[in-house]
Amino acid sequence: MKLATLKDGSLDGRLVLVSRDLKRAVAVPQIAPDLLDALQRWDAVCGRLASTAAALDAGRAEGAFAFDPHACAAPLPRSPQWLDGSAFLNHGRLMEKAFNAPPIPDFDTVPVMYQGASDDYLGPHDDVPMPSETDGIDFEGEFGVICGPVPMGVSPDAALNLVRLVVQINDWSLRALGPHEMKTGFGFLQAKPSTAFAPVAITPDELGEGWRDGRVQMRLHLQWNGQRFGEPHGGEMNFHFGQLIAHAARTRRLTAGTIVGSGTVSNVERSAGSACVAERRVIEKIDLGEIRTGFMRFGDRVRMQAKFADGRDGPFGVIDQQVVAAAGGEA
Amino acid sequence: MKLATLKDGSLDGRLVLVSRDLKRAVAVPQIAPDLLDALQRWDAVCGRLASTAAALDAGRAEGAFAFDPHACAAPLPRSPQWLDGSAFLNHGRLMEKAFNAPPIPDFDTVPVMYQGASDDYLGPHDDVPMPSETDGIDFEGEFGVICGPVPMGVSPDAALNLVRLVVQINDWSLRALGPHEMKTGFGFLQAKPSTAFAPVAITPDELGEGWRDGRVQMRLHLQWNGQRFGEPHGGEMNFHFGQLIAHAARTRRLTAGTIVGSGTVSNVERSAGSACVAERRVIEKIDLGEIRTGFMRFGDRVRMQAKFADGRDGPFGVIDQQVVAAAGGEA
Repeated sequence: MKLATLKDGSLDGRLVLVSRDLKRAVAVPQIAPDLLDALQRWDAVCGRLASTAAALDAGRAEGAFAFDPHACAAPLPRSPQWLDGSAFLNHGRLMEKAFNAPPIPDFDTVPVMYQGASDDYLGPHDDVPMPSETDGIDFEGEFGVICGPVPMGVSPDAALNLVRLVVQINDWSLRALGPHEMKTGFGFLQAKPSTAFAPVAITPDELGEGWRDGRVQMRLHLQWNGQRFGEPHGGEMNFHFGQLIAHAARTRRLTAGTIVGSGTVSNVERSAGSACVAERRVIEKIDLGEIRTGFMRFGDRVRMQAKFADGRDGPFGVIDQQVVAAAGGEA
Repeated sequence: MKLATLKDGSLDGRLVLVSRDLKRAVAVPQIAPDLLDALQRWDAVCGRLASTAAALDAGRAEGAFAFDPHACAAPLPRSPQWLDGSAFLNHGRLMEKAFNAPPIPDFDTVPVMYQGASDDYLGPHDDVPMPSETDGIDFEGEFGVICGPVPMGVSPDAALNLVRLVVQINDWSLRALGPHEMKTGFGFLQAKPSTAFAPVAITPDELGEGWRDGRVQMRLHLQWNGQRFGEPHGGEMNFHFGQLIAHAARTRRLTAGTIVGSGTVSNVERSAGSACVAERRVIEKIDLGEIRTGFMRFGDRVRMQAKFADGRDGPFGVIDQQVVAAAGGEA
């Protein structure tokens, strides 16, 4: 099942089901007005959503219309929590070097995770307002999951069964602000502006072999201003999503609709490229002896799209965003 | 104006206005069903809420009933963001010693702040489920503000004018988990379970001289299992709430209903006592050479109540909570 949210001026937007080929959509107000509501009543609505999705794919859904990703908000325009892990060890180790930070203790055995703002996500084609080009503007390509209600103390295996939907994420970052916030020990805040999402959230079954071992087994293809930037593979996560969810729920319950992220997709194999600028920069420093790539400028665009192993486009649709100067901001 | 939220099984609860003496309440569904909705439409509803509050105080509000703090959720049972500062330098400096952590860079000139879970707050008399007594269970007495919509890049002075309501907070903490999470640089996550709130949120004018220089000029009286624990004064904040809000909004906007906390209230003057156990423990270590106080146990209670300079009870009501073993938890 594929779901998306059309902007309608409300905080939660308008839920639509999307056809398998991402060409048609249908609103389902008689089942659930928005995705957050559907997630809060998932067991009661899931069957009816699936029936309507099947009708849509069969060309039999009444009121279906052309699906326009540019009209989409994030699948959840706001969510109860946004908890972003850093589950790709290769990324973490490179970022320690990039930030000149001490090694994260137990990084390979205990997940690390920060809590980000979850009240104001960006849609897949929304402009990205940033206050200053001097902040080290960066994208971060990630995968993530949207959970049902998670009890405190859940096991990793049980947590994996609470994954309702899979999403594709651009976790915008300001690299000039990150090191100071890490040194305070209080974690990222100013370094993490609003996070963006690809238009379509999917049930794991939509991925087929692309969802295995609690990981998204797909490459995330990134372009910066139309130039290839990388296509790292999501299967290299050191922890699966069930482990990340269980980590988050160790001392709290997570209410339905909580989003848990993988952290920047990153592979040891250098030829895969990178899913963020900071990682490319530190690789340049290590491999070439100097940093050659600057961070993003106002007007720059980034494009992200997951693809299946056989090269077919993934089911999440495309993130394609432009960085712009925030009102009152400065270059 | 005093506002509270009665539990009614919904996520946002039922908004009531509370009389000046905290004895009577009246629901206002014809104005706003819940406090989050009121905050999102504040300019449109504020006048009518004030009129009804005046009628309630005059004994003329139709449908008024006895106010029962035990029936209350947090004033906002969920909010868009929960951003907790650490604005009392004395607390921060003591906690560095308690955690044996390096000094926080620029701690006296740049606010520090973590983002906490905001989807599942506790009410003033709710039990506090914790997974284990070995986690270092601790309370933290704080003040906080609830904001209207805050634009990105707001100035501290302009931010202060966006304070809609003032609240009293118990920011539950697990001290055995904090140092590791600080060392990762990603900040507190497992170390911060659900946060609790006193029943009544108030407009700043309700405080009179108790709201000055963007700070709550009141003592927060704390008792642990019925024993006096401290009554530190809220005026010793190194940053005022406008500065904290502006810090949070440097690279993001904050949607209406965002809550910003002061961090643990703490005074240099030792006779004021403390607002958390960890602080008392490190003071014992410094002043007496050894830690004499353990953290909280299942069954323990903590009580917090702000008081005016003349000893009158503050307008927030009382937080009085008991720690209990979470389902599946262990002592």
